[in-house]
Amino acid sequence: QSNVTLYGRVDLSVGNLKDKVKNTSTTQMFQGGEGGLTTSRWGLRGTEDLGGGLKAAFKLENRFNADTGASQDPYFKGESSLSLMGGFGEVKLGRSTTVYDDVRALGQSRDVFDSAFTASSNGVFKSGGDYTSRFDNKISYYSPNMNGFYAGIDYALDEDATKSADQYALKVGYKVKDFEVALAHQNEKGKQDKYTVLAAMYDFGAASVSGSINQRNGNATNGDDTEYAFGVTVPMGAFAFSGGYAYSKTKSSAGGAKNGKGNGFALGMTYSLSKRTRLYAGWRDVEVKNAAGKKTKDERLYAVGVRHDF
Amino acid sequence: QSNVTLYGRVDLSVGNLKDKVKNTSTTQMFQGGEGGLTTSRWGLRGTEDLGGGLKAAFKLENRFNADTGASQDPYFKGESSLSLMGGFGEVKLGRSTTVYDDVRALGQSRDVFDSAFTASSNGVFKSGGDYTSRFDNKISYYSPNMNGFYAGIDYALDEDATKSADQYALKVGYKVKDFEVALAHQNEKGKQDKYTVLAAMYDFGAASVSGSINQRNGNATNGDDTEYAFGVTVPMGAFAFSGGYAYSKTKSSAGGAKNGKGNGFALGMTYSLSKRTRLYAGWRDVEVKNAAGKKTKDERLYAVGVRHDF
Amino acid sequence: QSNVTLYGRVDLSVGNLKDKVKNTSTTQMFQGGEGGLTTSRWGLRGTEDLGGGLKAAFKLENRFNADTGASQDPYFKGESSLSLMGGFGEVKLGRSTTVYDDVRALGQSRDVFDSAFTASSNGVFKSGGDYTSRFDNKISYYSPNMNGFYAGIDYALDEDATKSADQYALKVGYKVKDFEVALAHQNEKGKQDKYTVLAAMYDFGAASVSGSINQRNGNATNGDDTEYAFGVTVPMGAFAFSGGYAYSKTKSSAGGAKNGKGNGFALGMTYSLSKRTRLYAGWRDVEVKNAAGKKTKDERLYAVGVRHDF
Repeated sequence: QSNVTLYGRVDLSVGNLKDKVKNTSTTQMFQGGEGGLTTSRWGLRGTEDLGGGLKAAFKLENRFNADTGASQDPYFKGESSLSLMGGFGEVKLGRSTTVYDDVRALGQSRDVFDSAFTASSNGVFKSGGDYTSRFDNKISYYSPNMNGFYAGIDYALDEDATKSADQYALKVGYKVKDFEVALAHQNEKGKQDKYTVLAAMYDFGAASVSGSINQRNGNATNGDDTEYAFGVTVPMGAFAFSGGYAYSKTKSSAGGAKNGKGNGFALGMTYSLSKRTRLYAGWRDVEVKNAAGKKTKDERLYAVGVRHDF
Repeated sequence: QSNVTLYGRVDLSVGNLKDKVKNTSTTQMFQGGEGGLTTSRWGLRGTEDLGGGLKAAFKLENRFNADTGASQDPYFKGESSLSLMGGFGEVKLGRSTTVYDDVRALGQSRDVFDSAFTASSNGVFKSGGDYTSRFDNKISYYSPNMNGFYAGIDYALDEDATKSADQYALKVGYKVKDFEVALAHQNEKGKQDKYTVLAAMYDFGAASVSGSINQRNGNATNGDDTEYAFGVTVPMGAFAFSGGYAYSKTKSSAGGAKNGKGNGFALGMTYSLSKRTRLYAGWRDVEVKNAAGKKTKDERLYAVGVRHDF
Repeated sequence: QSNVTLYGRVDLSVGNLKDKVKNTSTTQMFQGGEGGLTTSRWGLRGTEDLGGGLKAAFKLENRFNADTGASQDPYFKGESSLSLMGGFGEVKLGRSTTVYDDVRALGQSRDVFDSAFTASSNGVFKSGGDYTSRFDNKISYYSPNMNGFYAGIDYALDEDATKSADQYALKVGYKVKDFEVALAHQNEKGKQDKYTVLAAMYDFGAASVSGSINQRNGNATNGDDTEYAFGVTVPMGAFAFSGGYAYSKTKSSAGGAKNGKGNGFALGMTYSLSKRTRLYAGWRDVEVKNAAGKKTKDERLYAVGVRHDF
């Protein structure tokens, strides 16, 4: 079968989630996305050489909860796309991650693996909870690499005859050897929020670090967020150790009463049994306070698990 | 993996749908079936040689909306079947297209690709909107080709102990070289409608033409339809140009008041980048009037897209 | 694609289900699980050699109704698991059959194929209707074979902070050449029922027999069941003939009024067209009486079908 590659990942862990506000503690099997490295998935992908430097490519990726066997919704939640690529870059149609999400991931790539253990997860970043990581009905253009520089744009059709709520995102970046920096902006007209992120990553060899500054600009009611994340990963043979910290502050112009704060701390370790299979352990502690200084969230997660790629 | 073939198609287009009755115009990404060549799909199929000229075959085909990644319902909407084949022909069990649908497709095969751009689409043919293209719980028998002649029969069980609403369809046809003609009938007891179609296709080389006459016989309330479709396709190197026209008239014996009319016009062009990948552009204009001569539908669709097979 | 195997089964049959209590008779196409050998399925599985005798393995199995193309729910209902295996045995995470279900299947393996034709199906065994064959969020350990002896344990997390309703199951067994015997227990805290089964199978060559004794211990309201099953299969060339009988009795301590009885009788025949494809015919007759001796179920099923593996 040369036209299509069947691939996937199963990620399962066992751990504990403690809610210090509600004072509950639950031992769980996590399906990856909620308490492990990554959400379990399977998919179909392929490329076709059309000659003259032109290629067609497709990707269809289902996400599922490996602990119960339930499919996430929509069916190809991860990606459902068709691309034409050449010297001009890539044009991609369908559903896939936005370029804003790409840059956001870059800023957290050393922050305990961009996983459920990411320090900014679960409410620390307000923008982490409410931005849209993937657009449907999306037309994207990604530039080729131009002496290290690259750019990308997403435009998603609202498909609504009664209002104008198209969404878009933009990114520009620079990548060379072990250093990458990028800036992105996302505008979701449907909800009048705008997101901007500046992120960078540097790999020293003995360690790699990444960081980002995110800004969400909302309206008078839901306020603005300013968010910071920093992470480091230290590889040691088959092991890798990671740590991350994230901090955010919400300001509201409506009476100044919504000045909430959030911060998160995370630690993780992976051990590679092979290129395709790794064991891991992770820890995440997050705390969110509202303007009155009252904790609205105080949560601690830890888990040990295994991830297998196919 | 010799026992199973993984295959599929991603079809995405961008265009505009104008509703002249409601006076709305919507720019959309279409998932194929609603405004492109064909509905996106992926499936599993295989055949096994059982010896003595006997074969077993199966086909499981999911349909999905490539613009959002959503699966259509039921899961294997396209087909879910198991067949035994031999010199006697083929016996197929499960869910698949009816033989009436096969003949209907023949009559529109040159009519802008039997696609969302088909002239008869979207209400021009009343029978296009309400006949069942696939039966569940179906037992089918397809004859072998006998000097060009062939026949097929579908019988679908209602599985209802309280009423008798089994459905069936029949076809007979003749195919030789570049000419094919077929006649089919479908009886859906559950709704007391009967459908009959006579269709033909001829390939001149420089052009191919197809046409059909459809007849839906309903009851006094929903009336009868008489429908005509005609299409032509002209290949020119990697390009193919198509045009189609469809006309229908509904007569109701209940006071003679439901003499509605519909007509549709369609144009399309494809450009093959490879055997598996083609670009296309299409146009469809449909208009439906009720007995009083009032337009109940007046719609114009155009789109440009890409289709990739794997 | 060496990392993943795509496999499946399509099982379809046509037959009749007669409900002698309601006095209805329905001719149906069965999707396998409801009136054929086995439920239709497709799945992904693979193993990876990690060196040092260690292996990783995964299995993702969808179940579907082949007669209509509908997926069963959850999506990977059959199995969704990740395992690490070695000399120590196997640790499996995720959703899969319980070890109690394994032993229950052993006891009915010669009883018309552990299928819809199984004598204990459809209410004869009360425990057949209400035990959970697969646990979600499950951690399992299966021992290696130790001079014929083996053991297994399942532990499934309730993931509920407000109550303690973890579930577990245990088995021990002995297998040598053509003989196997096993004992299992399952405790589903969520509903306060406990299940115990002792099952054995012996293959004489000319025939093989299997049998089991099941015990469900409930509470005063839903009572206890004692259940017996026996089955025999006789292979004759490409044919195999099977018969089975099952009997159960429910006792309730609440006034002693719930002493229901059930019994079932089943016959079946398979004919192998190849290793992957077989034709079959099956018959099942079940009868359940309540404490007053009134028939609450009196059902007869027969069907002929075909099963194809890929």
